[in-house]
Amino acid sequence: MTGLLTVVGLGPGDPRFLTPAAAEVLASATDLVGYGPYVDRLPKRPGQRRHSSDNRVELDRARFALDLATKGARVAVVSGGDPGVFAMAAAVFEAVDNGDPAWRSLDIRVEPGITAMLAAAARVGAPLGGDFCAMSLSDNLKPWEVVEARLRAALAADFVVALYNPISSARPWQLGAAFKIVAETRDPDTPIILARAVMRPDERIRTLPLSEVEASIADMSTIVIIGASTTKLIERSEGQAPYVYTPRFYGVRP
Amino acid sequence: MTGLLTVVGLGPGDPRFLTPAAAEVLASATDLVGYGPYVDRLPKRPGQRRHSSDNRVELDRARFALDLATKGARVAVVSGGDPGVFAMAAAVFEAVDNGDPAWRSLDIRVEPGITAMLAAAARVGAPLGGDFCAMSLSDNLKPWEVVEARLRAALAADFVVALYNPISSARPWQLGAAFKIVAETRDPDTPIILARAVMRPDERIRTLPLSEVEASIADMSTIVIIGASTTKLIERSEGQAPYVYTPRFYGVRP
Repeated sequence: MTGLLTVVGLGPGDPRFLTPAAAEVLASATDLVGYGPYVDRLPKRPGQRRHSSDNRVELDRARFALDLATKGARVAVVSGGDPGVFAMAAAVFEAVDNGDPAWRSLDIRVEPGITAMLAAAARVGAPLGGDFCAMSLSDNLKPWEVVEARLRAALAADFVVALYNPISSARPWQLGAAFKIVAETRDPDTPIILARAVMRPDERIRTLPLSEVEASIADMSTIVIIGASTTKLIERSEGQAPYVYTPRFYGVRP
Repeated sequence: MTGLLTVVGLGPGDPRFLTPAAAEVLASATDLVGYGPYVDRLPKRPGQRRHSSDNRVELDRARFALDLATKGARVAVVSGGDPGVFAMAAAVFEAVDNGDPAWRSLDIRVEPGITAMLAAAARVGAPLGGDFCAMSLSDNLKPWEVVEARLRAALAADFVVALYNPISSARPWQLGAAFKIVAETRDPDTPIILARAVMRPDERIRTLPLSEVEASIADMSTIVIIGASTTKLIERSEGQAPYVYTPRFYGVRP
């Protein structure tokens, strides 16, 4: 019997955003492996084993899942959002690349999901309508100098920028530093979207001008989208949140 | 009666990647509006009107849909992939911003979908595992100088770069020019993924080193992903396609 390991994207949280393809993989898995809160989201099934772990042990979790698959299990490694975007898929392939050569012949698949950036953008309009970059603001896995250089490059070329992992108790100052860098080149009225727990019961989404934004508004569950110079608000009636969008055209209007 | 307009992401093509939330919107719409092939993908429903149009009339289509919603219809504007990524959502908000003020009080929603970049990445491994940019290579809506400056900035900061709209009969030379720019800074063995018609019956996905890639391999239905300096192949047994991934860490290894 040959094992199978699929890294499955659960999307932003609400099962209405889980694709049927991902749901099939979850239903047919013998073993679910993942960060506790993601595993807890899933219904219990008779005969299906559940292996929860802490958030900061991605490589250990990947190796554990690969071992299970090598023994013939059908393993689903669950991941929030899309597994390929600042989530579990890269950790699994890092483990394969540096681990037991037998893992290379395993059937390893990735089931895509709706990543937080797309969910947050959909909630406010179309802020990613132009070109955009997505980057992790965490300096756990890369030096802050690299984070800063990438942010500056993206701003200089007038990309919309989505920041994953903007802040945590262990990384309290990085988002404030990023906003200062943004303010060096973007106008004070540039729309900044702070989208917390998108499509979950405790969702909170705010769009603020750069001049009023503060890092303390964000937390670990927040994704931050920084508008380009062309990103616009469409004001609406009293009590209606404005739409936020980035036009597709740039420079001369078609 | 108040109308509703929802821009719905159909995902990469196969209905197994359509979210239940998007499927609900499609089922309850009185009117479907979209590019012919996208509308044709959807099952016919009694009493539901279908309005197909050509691919190059996004703004006209958006205005038509907004007018229908103003008259009380529940309109679903269908879009491939995710509507917020080089698709219909921005066109709808452009139309609102520059059109009938009544459109601003409409309820306009966006249902996210799996965008081509995520689907293509999932098929080969985790090439977006690090920071990445997504940009349209089309110079229909922005000057080529802007396209080129953004590509150079993204490469210089060592982002993975996903290119949407890489080539068409009306834009035959841009992708070749882009590959030349990539070759100025990236190694000849940098993995380039050309993913055509992902998750559709005529899917074709190739990963080639930069030195062997040619623009003629791509067509209108292709998305191109350019690896960062850290993007790696994991070679496997004879006959098995290599996995492609970008490690999460950069510079010093954790």
